[in-house]
Amino acid sequence: MVIGGDAAGMSAASQARRLRGPDELEIVAFERGHFTSYSACGIPYWVGGDVEQRDDLVARTPEQHRERDIDLRMRTEVRRIDVANSRVLARDLEGGEESWTTYDKLVIATGARPVRPSLPGIDAPGVHGVQTLDDGQALLDTLARTEGRRAVVIGAGYIGVEMAEAMVNRGYEVTVVNRGKEPMATLDPDMGRLVHEAMTGMGITMVNDAEVTKIRTGDAGRVRAVATEDAEYPADVVVLGIGVRPETALAREAGLPLGEHGGLLTDLAMRVRGHENIWAGGDCVEVLDLVSGAHRHIALGTHANKHGQVIGSNAGGGYATFPGVVGTAVSKVCDLEIARTGLREKEARAAGLQFVAVTIESTSRAGYYPGAALMTVKMLAERRTGRLLGVQIVGREGAGKRVDVAAVALTAGMTVEQMTALDLGYAPPFSPVWDPVLVAARKAVAAVRAG
Amino acid sequence: MVIGGDAAGMSAASQARRLRGPDELEIVAFERGHFTSYSACGIPYWVGGDVEQRDDLVARTPEQHRERDIDLRMRTEVRRIDVANSRVLARDLEGGEESWTTYDKLVIATGARPVRPSLPGIDAPGVHGVQTLDDGQALLDTLARTEGRRAVVIGAGYIGVEMAEAMVNRGYEVTVVNRGKEPMATLDPDMGRLVHEAMTGMGITMVNDAEVTKIRTGDAGRVRAVATEDAEYPADVVVLGIGVRPETALAREAGLPLGEHGGLLTDLAMRVRGHENIWAGGDCVEVLDLVSGAHRHIALGTHANKHGQVIGSNAGGGYATFPGVVGTAVSKVCDLEIARTGLREKEARAAGLQFVAVTIESTSRAGYYPGAALMTVKMLAERRTGRLLGVQIVGREGAGKRVDVAAVALTAGMTVEQMTALDLGYAPPFSPVWDPVLVAARKAVAAVRAG
Repeated sequence: MVIGGDAAGMSAASQARRLRGPDELEIVAFERGHFTSYSACGIPYWVGGDVEQRDDLVARTPEQHRERDIDLRMRTEVRRIDVANSRVLARDLEGGEESWTTYDKLVIATGARPVRPSLPGIDAPGVHGVQTLDDGQALLDTLARTEGRRAVVIGAGYIGVEMAEAMVNRGYEVTVVNRGKEPMATLDPDMGRLVHEAMTGMGITMVNDAEVTKIRTGDAGRVRAVATEDAEYPADVVVLGIGVRPETALAREAGLPLGEHGGLLTDLAMRVRGHENIWAGGDCVEVLDLVSGAHRHIALGTHANKHGQVIGSNAGGGYATFPGVVGTAVSKVCDLEIARTGLREKEARAAGLQFVAVTIESTSRAGYYPGAALMTVKMLAERRTGRLLGVQIVGREGAGKRVDVAAVALTAGMTVEQMTALDLGYAPPFSPVWDPVLVAARKAVAAVRAG
Repeated sequence: MVIGGDAAGMSAASQARRLRGPDELEIVAFERGHFTSYSACGIPYWVGGDVEQRDDLVARTPEQHRERDIDLRMRTEVRRIDVANSRVLARDLEGGEESWTTYDKLVIATGARPVRPSLPGIDAPGVHGVQTLDDGQALLDTLARTEGRRAVVIGAGYIGVEMAEAMVNRGYEVTVVNRGKEPMATLDPDMGRLVHEAMTGMGITMVNDAEVTKIRTGDAGRVRAVATEDAEYPADVVVLGIGVRPETALAREAGLPLGEHGGLLTDLAMRVRGHENIWAGGDCVEVLDLVSGAHRHIALGTHANKHGQVIGSNAGGGYATFPGVVGTAVSKVCDLEIARTGLREKEARAAGLQFVAVTIESTSRAGYYPGAALMTVKMLAERRTGRLLGVQIVGREGAGKRVDVAAVALTAGMTVEQMTALDLGYAPPFSPVWDPVLVAARKAVAAVRAG
């Protein structure tokens, strides 16, 4: 039995089905929404017009799942998990009936819910989240009806900056109101500053250090402006890009173990701690950060898919584990690419680590090759041991995915000195003779020696 | 004392100078050519017109080296190394004088020489190698004088395919004559086949399994055609792209140890084996392949720069090592990106390894995101242990540098199962939710289990 029909839940169902046929394993899945297996990460690009149709974001429809003998119950919300009796209470959201169904094995994949600050005016027409396909459709409908061209995005993390790009692409004048000192709080402020400058260069108005106090409404209660303590920003539409929290109300009521970020806690096989026959994965769980040793909540489709794969293997009688993450993320605002992996300074300090931090500038290709674009790479290495702790990259084309090299090096526990010898692909259209990541590693080596 | 003024030699000199000032360390460098520290890898792009000027390829001029107190003697060829007496005999190629100079520490960075088959007609006007800036200039001079638009490239390795692109960009009808079964013998033939098909699609005529027997000449002894056993290909200009061998005649005469590929053999500090005060690096040495345990000759600027860095550190009284390579290479023909790392099937067999090989197709970005381009990834993993042995990638934009993930995983000795959990950067403009390298790893895991 699977609760939640998106990435983690349906990957688990599909993988279990691959291992066990319908005569061996019955699979029931509950989804309260209208869609299955869709790319929430793709919503900003659909809103922005890069992706034409909503259905392009759906990897697999309910019908396709049913063809694989998965008993998928759409628009059905699970209201209670009764762990003692191995059963769940589900409600058909259209018909209204509720009924109990028992399980032998349970997979909790309830995802995340967007943070929605309790501000005056937050529920006004014209204020939109972008967590689900339904949210995206509602926003697009609003845009079609709206004549004004001023958009305010609240929040400047991944969703915020991606939505800023989307609204720019739709021809809006965009203001981003950000609580932090710089956009992209997942980067150190010195790297966030580069994002800030680039966004300003794109004509986006970046307001940092600003707490939204109120959403002002006008005619017919529609949104009119976003107010902070110091100022007011006129808005014909407001997009909430503040991030998400694990959707674990059900799990909490059922007495399942939650971590400090509110996510379910699992073992390495993605089994809920202390429960032999319950697994959990995707945006509703906390994951082990392999660099800091702490648990984190990271809502990201790529993790959800891996979790589903692992859960489906184990629930299907196979064996697989999810060892943890190193905190890799990549994003873009128009042509600016932003990436990080491992720990930034604040996280390293919080983990009790002493470190050196270096920053270099280099280019995506050989300097003389057409299209060579500047990029900035910041690298953290542990003091004394020289172990790589984290990398942040801000640049143009060819910058973002370079973070993967550092992600693998972090996973392998490499030192920055070991990294300087890495045999990375070199040819003038692809890289300078020293790849930018290696240039940063060389500078980090010098800093470790000096420190 | 440094013999050879290109990447390895001058990196060594510069790094030693960084560690030791001119009052502590005297540095003399001999270069027989007209240039220092230039990008030979950039020559195809200069010939093809992507790089405008020859000087764009020069990273540092003789004058710039001299400003750093390096006694650089241009157009001076070393004729003999007298190891017993720690001295070299050098000849001023312009004045003609020869003289002995003694050294305390010697760095051999004599590079590579192009393979030039002893074919009838090989020295005819219109036949060009592309190893040095002088070669590139001579070819460009020929192109400026040539009216016909038919070019034949002999060889279909990296230089061959890059020169095919260059000649296409110059508006030539290009035929590539290749001894192997498919182009890019550094890939397995099934992956080379994809390159073949793509090159054909670009209007390049690919002739495989063909041994050149003769270069036919016509008016005034100029090249007229390239003949194989079976056919004749009209040519107004012929480019030799057959590869290079270590330039180690001097070292051989001096009794220094050479490997089976003709390159100097060094220890991990890049010291010539058995010689306390002689280092060697760049295209004249053999390197340890960390995957097969064998020695290989790989002429590549990125290795040469690393060697120079290591040599300069050690000769300057510091400490550094070059542990070896995993055989990463990346290239392109027009918009086709080609990459490899580790071992291909033939190499794995030669190393005594049993393996599984899998091939997958995926896309560079989320399938629904504009610009998502197909790519093919082939992965080899050791039988039983599942250790990653090699990856080959052929695709369009965003394909080539993905090989770096595998290069780091190889260096770390990861298994394909460990790879499936790698936390690689994901967002729709950058990758599908499963990065193509991870899709290949998942398939390899299944193959290892089955095999």
